[in-house]
Amino acid sequence: MSILVLGTVALDTVRTPYGERKKILGGSASHFAMSARLFSRVNIVSVVGSDFPQRHLDFLRGKNISLASLSRSPEKTFAWEGEYRGDLDTARTLRTELGALVTFKPQVFARERGASHVFLANIDPDLQQAVLRQLRRPALIAMDSMDYWIRHKRASLLRLMKRVDIFMANDQEARSLTGEDSLVAAARGLRALGPKLILVKKGQHGSLMYGGSFFIVLPAYPVAAVIDPTGAGDTFAGGFMGYLAQAGSCGGGALKKALVWGTVAASFNVEGFGLERTATLTKKALQARATAFRRQVSF
Amino acid sequence: MSILVLGTVALDTVRTPYGERKKILGGSASHFAMSARLFSRVNIVSVVGSDFPQRHLDFLRGKNISLASLSRSPEKTFAWEGEYRGDLDTARTLRTELGALVTFKPQVFARERGASHVFLANIDPDLQQAVLRQLRRPALIAMDSMDYWIRHKRASLLRLMKRVDIFMANDQEARSLTGEDSLVAAARGLRALGPKLILVKKGQHGSLMYGGSFFIVLPAYPVAAVIDPTGAGDTFAGGFMGYLAQAGSCGGGALKKALVWGTVAASFNVEGFGLERTATLTKKALQARATAFRRQVSF
Repeated sequence: MSILVLGTVALDTVRTPYGERKKILGGSASHFAMSARLFSRVNIVSVVGSDFPQRHLDFLRGKNISLASLSRSPEKTFAWEGEYRGDLDTARTLRTELGALVTFKPQVFARERGASHVFLANIDPDLQQAVLRQLRRPALIAMDSMDYWIRHKRASLLRLMKRVDIFMANDQEARSLTGEDSLVAAARGLRALGPKLILVKKGQHGSLMYGGSFFIVLPAYPVAAVIDPTGAGDTFAGGFMGYLAQAGSCGGGALKKALVWGTVAASFNVEGFGLERTATLTKKALQARATAFRRQVSF
Repeated sequence: MSILVLGTVALDTVRTPYGERKKILGGSASHFAMSARLFSRVNIVSVVGSDFPQRHLDFLRGKNISLASLSRSPEKTFAWEGEYRGDLDTARTLRTELGALVTFKPQVFARERGASHVFLANIDPDLQQAVLRQLRRPALIAMDSMDYWIRHKRASLLRLMKRVDIFMANDQEARSLTGEDSLVAAARGLRALGPKLILVKKGQHGSLMYGGSFFIVLPAYPVAAVIDPTGAGDTFAGGFMGYLAQAGSCGGGALKKALVWGTVAASFNVEGFGLERTATLTKKALQARATAFRRQVSF
């Protein structure tokens, strides 16, 4: 059992009401891996540029994360700059430098092609497809996407959706992909496009999972202060997929528990800038918060 | 054990993507009563004008609701006109005719002054105070309020908050009353103003309850189509207070269950215009949905 994630490894510059961080380690693959690592070894498929600091590579390798499928490019590392205001619900993107991403051709290292659990984070659906083609039969494939691909690569996206087990999207994306205002209707519409399981992420409002015969709804874990929500969705996905990989099952009970681990992992992510909080997170701390969350939610 | 609600009995004109209804029976007291009646007899303290149709009075009386404390005024009945768009999260008020509300002096009928459970729906805090003064020692007092009173009658509102057990507000109101963006911080801030229990209603995103030593968070029950959310918050309060009145306890377990009943009652309310759906609601249907909700949420 091993986890593979395709996504970005980025240098993020973030401003929130709590402060600013410049060029910190970020990206969907980093955030995903930082929570999935608590359950299993994680293989990152991504690219960084020549400006990428060696200390970040050392840091990731020290966290049970394999970088054998991380390409190096002479271009610059993908850089994102964004800002959050008010209740920090939505990021305002100030600048995006694609850099090394423009010519990125994902290459999965031979020994990592047998991964059992695969997460295709938000990236060009053609790259997501290219990674899938290199893998031997994974047990479970989940994908994320975003508005941009919905608008610009709808055909590729729809083709890919027929090949994955789990589709994750945030609430706005679920709505825009289906044209439905109701998230229940949107989840049904997304499932009709192929994936057996739909997971709608609602940020600070929790999540909704739809599996044809059932809905599961969970609030977010209530944190006192959201410092920086960047990467919360990928951290959520990391806890979710990590637990499923460890459990080796995707029955209803395992899915619900996976949703809890994802929720709780994300709650730690938002309590610090970038990976500050999840980098030092332990399974024990995650478990303790899951127990507290259970008390808050169950009845 | 009996429930008393101070609030409005109104004639609502509502437009949503699903259609329009003109001058239908509405108001906070009507919506509250229509769900609380499933648990106990409900006494409405309110006022209607000379234009108020007799059939609405007959309808309410037929639903285990007492109108002995409902005043009649020569003015017009309070009328609200509003519109919802998109995901129907926020109402846009098009017109408000206060009418009979302007000179309303609530008079609690002598036999109803011993009510055990009191809900002071959103209305001028001076009127809320005036009703409290007429009551013998209620076991539990809950209140709701809104931005308008926060801005225009802050002193009265803060005085009243020291006298109630439960304060309910929607998320925006909780933020604006405390100046806190985080709902966890806002709930703490509200509790510091007096009430032992804070209940933040987040509409389609569920609710959050804070009691000093504990938080309880619940998502909303996922409905396929929100037809008209008008009165959902008061319907929620009706299910919540109704259950507490029936349980005769406010321990942690009872509070959590009350939150579930409120959540489920509100989910029926939004499935039809005005009171369409809750008017025919039975305890059995409410129970069945509470059971389904439990499966969706508990882990």
